[in-house]
Amino acid sequence: MAFAGLRQEGLTKARIEALTDGIFATVMTILVLTLHVPQSNVPVPEQDLAGEVLGLWPSILVYVLSFVTLGLYWVGHHAQFHYIKHVDRPFLWINILFLLTIGFIPFSTNLLQDYPWPPTAVRVYGANLIANGLLLLSIWLYATRHGRLVDKDLDPHIIATARNRTLVGPAIFMLGILVSFVDTRVSVILYVLVVPFYIRPSHIDVHFRGAGHHDRESAD
Amino acid sequence: MAFAGLRQEGLTKARIEALTDGIFATVMTILVLTLHVPQSNVPVPEQDLAGEVLGLWPSILVYVLSFVTLGLYWVGHHAQFHYIKHVDRPFLWINILFLLTIGFIPFSTNLLQDYPWPPTAVRVYGANLIANGLLLLSIWLYATRHGRLVDKDLDPHIIATARNRTLVGPAIFMLGILVSFVDTRVSVILYVLVVPFYIRPSHIDVHFRGAGHHDRESAD
Amino acid sequence: MAFAGLRQEGLTKARIEALTDGIFATVMTILVLTLHVPQSNVPVPEQDLAGEVLGLWPSILVYVLSFVTLGLYWVGHHAQFHYIKHVDRPFLWINILFLLTIGFIPFSTNLLQDYPWPPTAVRVYGANLIANGLLLLSIWLYATRHGRLVDKDLDPHIIATARNRTLVGPAIFMLGILVSFVDTRVSVILYVLVVPFYIRPSHIDVHFRGAGHHDRESAD
Amino acid sequence: MAFAGLRQEGLTKARIEALTDGIFATVMTILVLTLHVPQSNVPVPEQDLAGEVLGLWPSILVYVLSFVTLGLYWVGHHAQFHYIKHVDRPFLWINILFLLTIGFIPFSTNLLQDYPWPPTAVRVYGANLIANGLLLLSIWLYATRHGRLVDKDLDPHIIATARNRTLVGPAIFMLGILVSFVDTRVSVILYVLVVPFYIRPSHIDVHFRGAGHHDRESAD
Repeated sequence: MAFAGLRQEGLTKARIEALTDGIFATVMTILVLTLHVPQSNVPVPEQDLAGEVLGLWPSILVYVLSFVTLGLYWVGHHAQFHYIKHVDRPFLWINILFLLTIGFIPFSTNLLQDYPWPPTAVRVYGANLIANGLLLLSIWLYATRHGRLVDKDLDPHIIATARNRTLVGPAIFMLGILVSFVDTRVSVILYVLVVPFYIRPSHIDVHFRGAGHHDRESAD
Repeated sequence: MAFAGLRQEGLTKARIEALTDGIFATVMTILVLTLHVPQSNVPVPEQDLAGEVLGLWPSILVYVLSFVTLGLYWVGHHAQFHYIKHVDRPFLWINILFLLTIGFIPFSTNLLQDYPWPPTAVRVYGANLIANGLLLLSIWLYATRHGRLVDKDLDPHIIATARNRTLVGPAIFMLGILVSFVDTRVSVILYVLVVPFYIRPSHIDVHFRGAGHHDRESAD
Repeated sequence: MAFAGLRQEGLTKARIEALTDGIFATVMTILVLTLHVPQSNVPVPEQDLAGEVLGLWPSILVYVLSFVTLGLYWVGHHAQFHYIKHVDRPFLWINILFLLTIGFIPFSTNLLQDYPWPPTAVRVYGANLIANGLLLLSIWLYATRHGRLVDKDLDPHIIATARNRTLVGPAIFMLGILVSFVDTRVSVILYVLVVPFYIRPSHIDVHFRGAGHHDRESAD
Repeated sequence: MAFAGLRQEGLTKARIEALTDGIFATVMTILVLTLHVPQSNVPVPEQDLAGEVLGLWPSILVYVLSFVTLGLYWVGHHAQFHYIKHVDRPFLWINILFLLTIGFIPFSTNLLQDYPWPPTAVRVYGANLIANGLLLLSIWLYATRHGRLVDKDLDPHIIATARNRTLVGPAIFMLGILVSFVDTRVSVILYVLVVPFYIRPSHIDVHFRGAGHHDRESAD
């Protein structure tokens, strides 16, 4: 019975992951619907078509930015679930709220396709990314508070570093919103700069990879 | 052979869960397509854009309501599958009908985006949620009748409490439809109130979480 | 090494199932996009909205028909994979072709939303369902030929019954296409009648369920 | 702890597969949205409908080409993951970039629906397929370099053959782009010819299937 309980908890975690992966996969895919192909009922003259495709560059840039940022959040969620061992009902709901804000990304992306970027669009987009980041942070804080859903002996240093690292994104997005009152192009540049920050190997990254590699090697 | 049979039954349950998670993930994601961004072919003046985004509040409210209500049903389905050990063909089909009504949610949501909410839209939306709830109830009743698909020794108290709890949603949605003949805004408020009812910890919730926690702790 | 090979084969089967479940889930969900909500930019008068929703009945009927027929094929695919133990590359490709025709269903469904149903739409829809059925049959024939991908000792009676049963759908859909030259409403009725044929318990169904239940009970 | 680490690495691989399968499933499904059904609000005269559906042949051809090419890349990714045992963060990101270009396919497909095919559309489509192929190649090169993520004793012959095989697609697509300056119909024929090249059994294919079959048989 105790074992069955454990197994069920594992299933629960697996289903949150399945819903998360499914929503991320669908959101990342329907993003492409924000790129409007010039209407093809009437054959478009060749040079116009080339011009129109090239003219889509701001939309394509924002598509790539949204896709990669979704990738960041997916990797972040994934890295957290590396440490999360159990789930409970409130945790389920924080995850669903996180997914709600993730599901909103195609709307914000769609808003941000004009160039130069309109301030309202830049702020809605930034606010959406902040909401994503703060809810991802909430998942981590809820799970690690008093070792609630993680191993009791999880290194506090990992807990703190992951927390601080998750805060950087929302902080930069907030700066981007403030800057949008001056020049929205700078805001978008700031949003873009968050990507290399999270992709480059970092302190916590060494932890993640180190743990995995050491384990693997010591298991060889 | 007996073991192989058991394993196959387990696979069957896993694939129903996979289809369910996939449909929920896709439905929750395409909900966002009900939010129409002001057409961006022509650059929209900034203050108009801000006004139009703010003017989307009824659509965004309904988006959030639908997303969270889908979350409720997903959590409910999930909680039921905690106890369901086997599946059979009729059970497969009740699940598919449940998913059919879940797949209808983006249509009902799309209907309900004008404000003040038109009575027809409010009633279609409510009827959709009632159909979801009654089919979720059917899954539970079919599975638990004479211990058909659950452990024979499953506490009858859990069976009854889960049944009653699942009935509350459809009852309130029914009330919402009746109220729509007077004021559809009150109907939508009733629909919204279902959410905190299901999210707050409750009697059955204690069972769920208690079981999990006790098992886990006794296993430590 | 042999064990690793077996495990990998199992993973391959699991990933075909994952792709299949994912495509079915997405197709079943985007079907709802074939239902066009009356444009809501301009508030629609209440009685018009009620009339327009009621006027959608042929679209809704076809939505339900497509959803349930997809359910039939998903259950059929699922039942076949109950017996399939290995996969190989040609098998992978027959599955992908099957999924290609499944992915076509929203298009055929969309064609079939006018009432009375236009002959072209009825025939394209029927042809699509025939293609689905024949490819599902091909999956079974390829897998069971000389026991290629199933257990060598699989009862030939099960192989034959499943084959015959899978043929019934395409045969009725073919009849529906022929009848479309007289009255397309009869064709749609025939398409609808395929559903209860596959849902009701049958000879092979007893096999499926019997096997599962006996196994389970003998294991208790 | 070492074992836990190994298990976690396995989970990580499983979640990349889940995201990949989810994105492929969604992309393959929403491809069908590139097929525009003649507007059905107004009943279309029967012979016009038949003519319009037949007139969709270039779109349908491109739909089939894109679906099957996505199938090729899915099978290719799948075959690579047969050999990949571990994952790390850079590997995660190469996969996400691969998925980004896969997510772009519905846009390129949508561009290519006029006939005769416009050069810009043919080149964007070809460039998209080249990007897919080169990123799939990168996944393989990154994983196999110094045996980074595969078994150290993986046959170098398999590594080289898989690499060369993956290069053929991009090479032909590049040729297709060059040919587009003369006749875009030849380009599309070249794109189509890539399909049988990858589907037919080949040198490496023998390796794949041989390995599986031998293992299975030796395990019997």
